[in-house]
Amino acid sequence: MNDNAVIAIHGGAGTILRASLSASAEAEYHAALHAVLAAGQRVLADGGSALDAVSEAVRLLEDCPLFNAGIGAVYTAAGTHELDAAIMDGSTLEAGAICCVKRVRNPVLAARRVLECSEHVLFTGEGAESFAAAQGLEFVEPQYFDTEARHRQWLLARDQQRAMLDHDGATLAASPSATDNSDPMPHEPIDPNRKFGTVGAVALDRHGHVAAATSTGGVTNKQVGRVGDTPLIGAGCYADDATCAVSTTGSGEMFMRMVAAYDVAAQMAYRNVSLHEAAHDVVMNRLPKIDGRGGLIAVDALGNIALPFNTEGMYRGFARLGEAPTTAIYR
Amino acid sequence: MNDNAVIAIHGGAGTILRASLSASAEAEYHAALHAVLAAGQRVLADGGSALDAVSEAVRLLEDCPLFNAGIGAVYTAAGTHELDAAIMDGSTLEAGAICCVKRVRNPVLAARRVLECSEHVLFTGEGAESFAAAQGLEFVEPQYFDTEARHRQWLLARDQQRAMLDHDGATLAASPSATDNSDPMPHEPIDPNRKFGTVGAVALDRHGHVAAATSTGGVTNKQVGRVGDTPLIGAGCYADDATCAVSTTGSGEMFMRMVAAYDVAAQMAYRNVSLHEAAHDVVMNRLPKIDGRGGLIAVDALGNIALPFNTEGMYRGFARLGEAPTTAIYR
Repeated sequence: MNDNAVIAIHGGAGTILRASLSASAEAEYHAALHAVLAAGQRVLADGGSALDAVSEAVRLLEDCPLFNAGIGAVYTAAGTHELDAAIMDGSTLEAGAICCVKRVRNPVLAARRVLECSEHVLFTGEGAESFAAAQGLEFVEPQYFDTEARHRQWLLARDQQRAMLDHDGATLAASPSATDNSDPMPHEPIDPNRKFGTVGAVALDRHGHVAAATSTGGVTNKQVGRVGDTPLIGAGCYADDATCAVSTTGSGEMFMRMVAAYDVAAQMAYRNVSLHEAAHDVVMNRLPKIDGRGGLIAVDALGNIALPFNTEGMYRGFARLGEAPTTAIYR
Repeated sequence: MNDNAVIAIHGGAGTILRASLSASAEAEYHAALHAVLAAGQRVLADGGSALDAVSEAVRLLEDCPLFNAGIGAVYTAAGTHELDAAIMDGSTLEAGAICCVKRVRNPVLAARRVLECSEHVLFTGEGAESFAAAQGLEFVEPQYFDTEARHRQWLLARDQQRAMLDHDGATLAASPSATDNSDPMPHEPIDPNRKFGTVGAVALDRHGHVAAATSTGGVTNKQVGRVGDTPLIGAGCYADDATCAVSTTGSGEMFMRMVAAYDVAAQMAYRNVSLHEAAHDVVMNRLPKIDGRGGLIAVDALGNIALPFNTEGMYRGFARLGEAPTTAIYR
């Protein structure tokens, strides 16, 4: 049993400005992150697997309406929710993922079942829901995922995108006053960095194994059927005891094109650099080359952690055994 | 303009035994591969882009019923076809992919439109079809993809899997006579290596850019909604001028877990090894560690090519400017 066991989580990265988050909202986010970390910590302290710890952490993040996964997921252009999740076990390289599900309460649990009970790695759409149903997972009505805050965000994004079709998008984006009306979120320019969010967890357990899990509702007002990096092994999630476990959040398409999660592991394996150096290079050097914005959380088999992000903020935290969880939002 | 321009293609890897393929069937495969290579060669000779060359090659492979992509795609467990494709441009790292489409005649052309006309990288299911329809791509009735040979394969696979639920799969697999009845494909044991197939192309153009494309119908009798490595950037397809372009074929889940296509590029970039060494390591060392079976084709910006596979055969070929295409099936 090693004492380096640790769990790290994220609740999305983006333009999180101090000015735009009230003290009470901030406290709410810290409390939510703290509770999730404490739950993951308990799993690890009891000798549970990293896989169990990340499953439980992401399940709780999905059930928390503050974050864009499970309840609290963003809306598609059709006003619906389409959820994606992935999970990977670093001790076996086994992985499971689902994308574009609409009625599975906890997508990460469906991904876990794919890992454990299927010869396949990824299921999409109705096939994914059939698999989840056959596995006895909890289903909910699509309206279960609705939240008032995300609905307002969606209406705003939709109106702005409509406006962009009629006007010059650049002008509009540079002119926040164009949306400064009675909307509860005034002064929000069209900013792709605000439109995404993801949740994820990585952990090292007391047996020396790592695991990663990621879950999301995608990006606000996304076209129906769009799949981002979250459910793609190597892009939004990766785990290998020999290197590290990684969960990403950001402008998904750029993370897909950079195979961001796996790139951290590949740099450790092939360039022989530290977790910190590899994670930093992917987030601070490689992703920005194609305007990739966001961050990631990563842990290696020694218990080192890295939580780099290139945006104004990333909801994040970590907890080592026997220590109080640490949470943070801004740089 | 460089003279190293080259195109390579594959039509799937697996247990392709000399004994099981008649001389006339062999000749048919060689002729089909030759024609596709000649078409890709013409694109490159005319100064066309690598992206154009791989699009055209994969389009032709999709339209050829011999290969498991487009017409000639395998059947799902529901007796339907679900098609996946991806394409990537090594000069920009732009990528496009679609999965689980049922009525798009040429999935690779839909993937190309995602690359060129969308801010997204991957669309699934009906959303992917809506996108393709909005782009004016050719739609067909689902029955268009039916072929008699694949239908027979499916019936056999389905019956064998049903039998496996009732009996001991290992015994059945070891006893080909269990299926030695009036079926047109007797003596075919349950063999996952026979059940897959994919098509793909990689190219280096006269401007020094590389590109890759991959397309598939998946695995015979797959569960509805199963997505393999083909449409996943980094798993089944990857291209970066700085390293190489790769298209894979094989037991998709293992290629996903190994992020196989990107791993070739990562080894070149971070271990500083040759295309040959990187491609060989992925196919001969890394994939076998998790029982990954199949192969890949790869090209770098110098015009080096690698076509390794760890199965009995891989339908493959390559063509350099001004030279006759070379095609091969077995080791």
